[in-house]
Amino acid sequence: MGYKIITISREFGSGGHTVGRRLAEELGIKCYDREIIDRVAEESGFDKDYIKEKGEYVPHGPFGNMMNRWSYYGPTNEEKIWQIQSDIILDIADRESCVIVGRCADYLLKDRDDVLKVFIHADMKYRAERIVRLYGETNETPEKRLSDKDKHRKAYYQVYTDMEYGDARNYQICLNTGALGEDYCVELLKQIFTR
Amino acid sequence: MGYKIITISREFGSGGHTVGRRLAEELGIKCYDREIIDRVAEESGFDKDYIKEKGEYVPHGPFGNMMNRWSYYGPTNEEKIWQIQSDIILDIADRESCVIVGRCADYLLKDRDDVLKVFIHADMKYRAERIVRLYGETNETPEKRLSDKDKHRKAYYQVYTDMEYGDARNYQICLNTGALGEDYCVELLKQIFTR
Repeated sequence: MGYKIITISREFGSGGHTVGRRLAEELGIKCYDREIIDRVAEESGFDKDYIKEKGEYVPHGPFGNMMNRWSYYGPTNEEKIWQIQSDIILDIADRESCVIVGRCADYLLKDRDDVLKVFIHADMKYRAERIVRLYGETNETPEKRLSDKDKHRKAYYQVYTDMEYGDARNYQICLNTGALGEDYCVELLKQIFTR
Repeated sequence: MGYKIITISREFGSGGHTVGRRLAEELGIKCYDREIIDRVAEESGFDKDYIKEKGEYVPHGPFGNMMNRWSYYGPTNEEKIWQIQSDIILDIADRESCVIVGRCADYLLKDRDDVLKVFIHADMKYRAERIVRLYGETNETPEKRLSDKDKHRKAYYQVYTDMEYGDARNYQICLNTGALGEDYCVELLKQIFTR
């Protein structure tokens, strides 16, 4: 199909990030995730942790008219980060074949025919076990941590893209890592990208 | 993975039905779609066209408390059809390995581990061209016909399952036939089912 870019949107804890990294390795192309944060930090002067949080999660509400405020009060920090991040993603996609994880890259590149847009998800039980295994226990239950992350990621996606987070119709393929296994998801995506 | 059943939910015009039929052929198992309508007709006495319409589309609103009305006024025709259809689907799934297209089979069988739940969709342009090619022109534009069907199927799904139609998280795999091609979707699903 002549795909050049793969965007991976993913539920927190689903292993979508790992799938993206491994897929890029197998394909011998670069995976952009933290590199985008580094570049936003360089260009904006904001702290990396601050960008990581603001660049994918909306921590407050209501969100409906957030973008409309721009012209009246000047851009907020979130809006500045969004703008810089968007420019960086468009620039990367123009330059090279790669995997881009998260950060609404699917939306930013939605009009290109050479982008394989992927959504990775898994059920709560799979994700809960996974985040405890990888990130350890905290005072909050893993289910609560996941549902908070889901809520904020969904809000962020909706504010900036005006599309429904997790709607299959925004993607060419959606995969459940819990049911299919991370290894097999990497294999399937590699096959689709290279056919 | 030991899958026994494949359920195919699909957007109208996406080719999901064709994918289901062809997949069943390739796998040498039965594809249930019209057969379910025939059996509902036999058991209920309702007309097949009436069942076809009522068994997948909600033609009126508001829908919120439709299920709650059951106990007060007795079941409506739609509710009777739903009940008979559900029993038939559960019975089929117990008896044999098969593909079941539509009719909320994904929801009815959601607690079984041996069900590969698939959602097939495509963008408006692909579906519009496809329904004109297959079903001809009508007084309405294909886009209007599609958006009406989408609306009613979404409402039906929500009333009976309380889940969001088209949400990737209800499925193990979602595929865009417009982007990937129907042939390749059949191939991918066959591979996943038989691995």
